[in-house]
Amino acid sequence: MTVKQDNQYQVRFLPDNIVVRAGKGESLLKIALKAGVHLTTTCGGSGTCSSCRILIIKGNLDCKHSYGITEYDFKRGVRLACQSCVTGDVVVEVPKTTDLASTSINAFREIPAALPLLNPITRKLALQLPVPTIGDNRADLKRLKHVLKNHGYENVLVDYDVVKQIPGIMREKNWSITATLCTSTNVPLLSRLESGDTTTNHYGAVFDLGTTAVRGRIIAADSGQVMAEETAYNRQREYGEDIISRISYCRRPEGIEVLQKLISDTLNVLIEKMVLSSGIDDGDISSVVIAGNTVMVQLLLAIDPEPLRLSPYVPAIDNTPPVKASELGINLGRHCYVHIIPVIASYVGGDIVAGIAACGMHESDKVNLYIDIGTNGEIVLGKKEWMVTTACSAGPTFEGGGIRHGMLAVAGAIEDFELPDPCGEPSIRIIGDINPAGICGSGLINAVSALFTSGLLGRNGKFNSELSCSRLRKGTDGFEYVLADGSSTSSGKDIVLTEVDVDNFIRSKAAIYAGCQTLADSVGIGTHEIDNIIIAGTFGSQINIEKAVRVGLLPDMARDKFRFVGNGSLKGAHTAFLSLKTCQDMLKIADMITGIELSENEAFMDNYVSSLFLPHTDLNRFPSFLNQRG
Amino acid sequence: MTVKQDNQYQVRFLPDNIVVRAGKGESLLKIALKAGVHLTTTCGGSGTCSSCRILIIKGNLDCKHSYGITEYDFKRGVRLACQSCVTGDVVVEVPKTTDLASTSINAFREIPAALPLLNPITRKLALQLPVPTIGDNRADLKRLKHVLKNHGYENVLVDYDVVKQIPGIMREKNWSITATLCTSTNVPLLSRLESGDTTTNHYGAVFDLGTTAVRGRIIAADSGQVMAEETAYNRQREYGEDIISRISYCRRPEGIEVLQKLISDTLNVLIEKMVLSSGIDDGDISSVVIAGNTVMVQLLLAIDPEPLRLSPYVPAIDNTPPVKASELGINLGRHCYVHIIPVIASYVGGDIVAGIAACGMHESDKVNLYIDIGTNGEIVLGKKEWMVTTACSAGPTFEGGGIRHGMLAVAGAIEDFELPDPCGEPSIRIIGDINPAGICGSGLINAVSALFTSGLLGRNGKFNSELSCSRLRKGTDGFEYVLADGSSTSSGKDIVLTEVDVDNFIRSKAAIYAGCQTLADSVGIGTHEIDNIIIAGTFGSQINIEKAVRVGLLPDMARDKFRFVGNGSLKGAHTAFLSLKTCQDMLKIADMITGIELSENEAFMDNYVSSLFLPHTDLNRFPSFLNQRG
Repeated sequence: MTVKQDNQYQVRFLPDNIVVRAGKGESLLKIALKAGVHLTTTCGGSGTCSSCRILIIKGNLDCKHSYGITEYDFKRGVRLACQSCVTGDVVVEVPKTTDLASTSINAFREIPAALPLLNPITRKLALQLPVPTIGDNRADLKRLKHVLKNHGYENVLVDYDVVKQIPGIMREKNWSITATLCTSTNVPLLSRLESGDTTTNHYGAVFDLGTTAVRGRIIAADSGQVMAEETAYNRQREYGEDIISRISYCRRPEGIEVLQKLISDTLNVLIEKMVLSSGIDDGDISSVVIAGNTVMVQLLLAIDPEPLRLSPYVPAIDNTPPVKASELGINLGRHCYVHIIPVIASYVGGDIVAGIAACGMHESDKVNLYIDIGTNGEIVLGKKEWMVTTACSAGPTFEGGGIRHGMLAVAGAIEDFELPDPCGEPSIRIIGDINPAGICGSGLINAVSALFTSGLLGRNGKFNSELSCSRLRKGTDGFEYVLADGSSTSSGKDIVLTEVDVDNFIRSKAAIYAGCQTLADSVGIGTHEIDNIIIAGTFGSQINIEKAVRVGLLPDMARDKFRFVGNGSLKGAHTAFLSLKTCQDMLKIADMITGIELSENEAFMDNYVSSLFLPHTDLNRFPSFLNQRG
Repeated sequence: MTVKQDNQYQVRFLPDNIVVRAGKGESLLKIALKAGVHLTTTCGGSGTCSSCRILIIKGNLDCKHSYGITEYDFKRGVRLACQSCVTGDVVVEVPKTTDLASTSINAFREIPAALPLLNPITRKLALQLPVPTIGDNRADLKRLKHVLKNHGYENVLVDYDVVKQIPGIMREKNWSITATLCTSTNVPLLSRLESGDTTTNHYGAVFDLGTTAVRGRIIAADSGQVMAEETAYNRQREYGEDIISRISYCRRPEGIEVLQKLISDTLNVLIEKMVLSSGIDDGDISSVVIAGNTVMVQLLLAIDPEPLRLSPYVPAIDNTPPVKASELGINLGRHCYVHIIPVIASYVGGDIVAGIAACGMHESDKVNLYIDIGTNGEIVLGKKEWMVTTACSAGPTFEGGGIRHGMLAVAGAIEDFELPDPCGEPSIRIIGDINPAGICGSGLINAVSALFTSGLLGRNGKFNSELSCSRLRKGTDGFEYVLADGSSTSSGKDIVLTEVDVDNFIRSKAAIYAGCQTLADSVGIGTHEIDNIIIAGTFGSQINIEKAVRVGLLPDMARDKFRFVGNGSLKGAHTAFLSLKTCQDMLKIADMITGIELSENEAFMDNYVSSLFLPHTDLNRFPSFLNQRG
């Protein structure tokens, strides 16, 4: 193929809308680099790392090969930039850099959330009521109920806030009204009346309520379109990064109230931002859907979380009835109800139920292993007919906690680390392409994997001090490896990885691995019987599967069995808003899953101890690496 | 029978607990007069007026005859005091004097409210939940719902106020709890959780919400016992005695809010008084039941009443969903819900539905005519299979309005008036036995009847000035009759009845009579086909049937067809609290009744004009008086 020199074609990169001209046959990766568009590549453009994925929005590309791209993704236009050459004008979308608000590097390998039929949990019906006469002077509400019955809504409960406004609203536009109904409960609830036809002013605000971060979207009910998306730190972090500190804080007299206000404040900030960016009227937000872990849900509802951390670990509620947003301090109209995705157990929340529903695991004939890796690793194993779940405490390692220079996956974090020569210079990638400030969870996996593969780290997690490597040195916590020296860091100080860091990392990855193993053993399922491994969570989406298996975080299974669901919690909340059926499925999911408690489980302890090596005590569990060093 | 002189027996008069001694064979009426116990008598002890009724509580009386006492009443111990002689120690109850809080002079002729099976609309269930273990760590709410299901309550809605308190309450007394359920709606609502067994602390506050007065009771749910009863003026009277002024006031921006607050303030005062007098804890009031006319109900709910007074006279709501008392400004716990008896039309409210249910008309095989006489006369005709209703504006006459010296039936009001000799001195009875201050509605009926019977008033309502009667004189409004001269009145001025007063009275009684006639005609029912006439309302209970028929207020039917239901509205609210079935019956009653609008009805106008005479233009309608003068 001849590379032409004249820049005859236009290439537009979304979402930043950067437009450049390129010649026929030019590689899209090179065009992107030239244009300053960030694209991840770890193989240097050889087409083997599958990192430089892009999505064709318009036009075509001449594509050499598509290693690591599923058939589904290929069909919808996902390509490797390094293997694609321009043959005409083209518009492509690139994943944004990894920050809290980003799509992930694995975004194009994600399982798409089941596209729901648009049947939102909150319905808006435009109705023309018969005008009363002296011969038909039934009460306004009776008149309305009759018409609602014709639309299939019987025995409707009516909110008192609606009752008060009935006569005025019905008469304002000559008996043309719009009724809003919450349909997620056993009896439909009439939550709002407006005069005229307002059915197109109908949005949902959906949230993933995380311990660290809260992510939200505003979605149009009539089209399913995402109008805005925002992320913010959970303001409760003032009272502790981890969940246990927050539960402890609730023992103070004002504790629950303070934490409740902080979480509703966080939601309010997100709503304000999204309303501003989308230009919609916040009065048109008809309902809120929230998926969160059990502690976050109880704190949002101002329910004492203390019993969640004490044996026998009992949540207060499984399925929360819809609550007025205003009662939770959320700044939305009194017609707006909050729907909370049901929780399973104290340690497995609505975020997991939402994720399972979003990836369709509850309808799958295959055996799926769903893993959400975070401070708590939540694991679900099962298929349509059965599911078991557990959670294991991985600690804050993956969010940068307990690591000397650990940090969240935000700008300045080392997110990738390669070491072609054990004693040579590493190649590192930093989020935001700025000077490094620390290392994030995915960077940690990649660094430990590279150091282990290179032989600098032993299976026991100790550095091999016999190798003459200038970056390996003795520090205050034993040996340490200099990931980036002070000349290139934002603080001017070296960024190191210590043996204590590695030890903490190994404990964390061991907890996740042992959790998966114990759960599979509990139902007598062998690794080979698992059809798919679904990695959930924003952090999960940053993970390089090969390297995560290498360190023993994930089981050593065929790489094509791995799938990503991305932020399953947010996707599930999104889907629940748009689909009454999914919302009802979530109740069934929460009901059918059997929880297994690991904290008092001996098998788990044995599995955990066996996992405290790289990748594991029993190398037969990691056949891919049996012939490699380590 | 020999009258013995020694006072060998003890006679105790309730409710004032006055104890006197009496000799064998002494008449109870005389004993009462001697003891200062007020007993009504208009026939002077001849046993024909049936006014001096008493109820035997303990002991026996030797009773000569019992004219006007039904078999039912006789069996439960009602006797005529003038016809009863003591034969041993006895305890009797006398009706209290007629004031707002009193039982009425017809109290012992009242239809008793159907004694409900105790199945209150709000249930309290004492439950022992299984204590959670590591093997059974279901959510607290799931645990509770499972137990509730075993008690027959499925798909329970849970109040957010309950959700918040779940973990603390369940653990406080080792999983022994009491659940309060509102059962009046399609799905039971869990409105409260308490720790331990609190089932005996369970009361209802029930109210008759009248335009003029509000009457309340506190009732024990487990026994049906009335713990307290109080009456107060409706504080909305500051903004007008009549309903139309109040509706008009609502056109002001703050109007609805002001009137809503006044009515909730009225309820709060009553609750405070009743809680004080009964000694119960107001936190133990589990629900409130309110029966009121449609305007009062809408004002309590802060709903614009304007459409109620404009054609086509449409109420906002027929059946109000339960509303939290606190949302209406009622000072009761957030667990306490207000249940409002459904209304039929703008002019026929929940007070009528309550009365019909209380007297069992909806279960009757007989044709009943139910009349509630007040500013508005509400009339219902029908039986088990069908009912029609209407309302006619009688004006404020019966409450003393539009009458020169008119007043409410409170202390100082002339409540009875007899004129044995047309030109002689009348005998009058005054409520409270004090100097007269004016004349109340029942006094007015009795005075007009006596003046008409004596020939001082003509059939056209004009005084016969040719009769030489010192009390008849020319005044500023034409001729007037001096009911009481200044020497005996509280103000020192004469209390008179003018021709204008009589004219207003005739318009009022004509409206009621024409309403009954039009309603009966509308369904082709003749007077002879009506089996019972049920007179409702506190005012109704004061009416002397004979005299009310004489002036043409009530139809001329066999006197034994007349029944009193007393305060049907309060009785109905009372019964609704104690009986879920009655509460459900009320919904059916409101649904089955056909309303007939008189304001645009020509037949009514004709009937009204024909009724503007004493007793009526067509004397054939009043056969009892065909041979009498008039």
